[in-house]
Amino acid sequence: MKRDVVPGPAGLGRLIEALRVLPGVGPRSAQRMAYHLLQHDRAGAEALGSALGEALRTVRHCSLCNSFTDDEVCQLCRSPRRDPTQLCVVETPADLAMVEQTLSYSGLYFVLMGRLSPLDGVGPRDIGLDRLLARAGDGAVQEVILATNFTNEGEATAHYIAEMLRARGIRSSRIARGVPLGGELEYVDAGTISQAIQDRRSL
Amino acid sequence: MKRDVVPGPAGLGRLIEALRVLPGVGPRSAQRMAYHLLQHDRAGAEALGSALGEALRTVRHCSLCNSFTDDEVCQLCRSPRRDPTQLCVVETPADLAMVEQTLSYSGLYFVLMGRLSPLDGVGPRDIGLDRLLARAGDGAVQEVILATNFTNEGEATAHYIAEMLRARGIRSSRIARGVPLGGELEYVDAGTISQAIQDRRSL
Repeated sequence: MKRDVVPGPAGLGRLIEALRVLPGVGPRSAQRMAYHLLQHDRAGAEALGSALGEALRTVRHCSLCNSFTDDEVCQLCRSPRRDPTQLCVVETPADLAMVEQTLSYSGLYFVLMGRLSPLDGVGPRDIGLDRLLARAGDGAVQEVILATNFTNEGEATAHYIAEMLRARGIRSSRIARGVPLGGELEYVDAGTISQAIQDRRSL
Repeated sequence: MKRDVVPGPAGLGRLIEALRVLPGVGPRSAQRMAYHLLQHDRAGAEALGSALGEALRTVRHCSLCNSFTDDEVCQLCRSPRRDPTQLCVVETPADLAMVEQTLSYSGLYFVLMGRLSPLDGVGPRDIGLDRLLARAGDGAVQEVILATNFTNEGEATAHYIAEMLRARGIRSSRIARGVPLGGELEYVDAGTISQAIQDRRSL
């Protein structure tokens, strides 16, 4: 008895395909997600659909700090309580949120929305470097604090930006490398310890 | 200088929250997904939004096999080329697809869309057991092949269904347990080997 190939409903196939735009979601998890939504959480799927639409309509980049906002200029950049002499450069809005959580920084931000990565074709223009330089040279900013990640690409990005700023006579600094809080030397990698020794502070 | 709390755009927050309906997606990955979509793949986000809507509108359950379909009765159940004397019971449409891929089964299916799981409050009604029994007793079906997973819940589900079928005088069988193809005994768990010995076939 000859078999028929069974393609399944077209709408399901398109949903599985569409879910794969999510980072880290391969064909198997996309299928699992689609089944879950259609079988167990149709209300959630509905909500996700409208949240996507709303976010696409309302979320854009702040014209000053480049982070996500629903205004021309975001709430943080508009705040009169932030110190306009300091500008902290981070890779992503998540990094900005982490710095905010520390409650130890009251200046302004610039969000690169990425990092320099020549191998992935990400150059200075893609991380808004021209806008960062214009912002840093606005007369109010006295120090640019580079808080990109301590990865190879984050380090390279920090050094590149520092060079550009130096050429324009703008002072920049890099957040400290070292052993993390609660870190036990036995469990910290050698590179971190070596940097912590190099960057030691006199007491 | 006092700090302002920065909540970020509302639409972004709602998108992050909405993404958490996806199985396996926690707050961090939801945030990463939302940033990725808004920053790098707005077209993909748009497509995902409409795919969700389309799937919710068009995808439903086949009235015969209970799998996903966009018709009253799915293509497989309608096919004249399938053997109506055999009914294979699987847990999910993904399992159905796996059995189909083997090209070794030409009968019909019933998809439980789950498994018995008293601890999670999933009882016989939730896996459509009444509909399965009606289907199995339609006069055409001569054998019900139980292909639920070899997990505790899958095994329990198979045994429960087999009992129900036996009470109605319907023959059921369970797909074979054993060492998987290409399996090396050294790397297979003891339980599997013990079952493979128990279920040995004479040559």
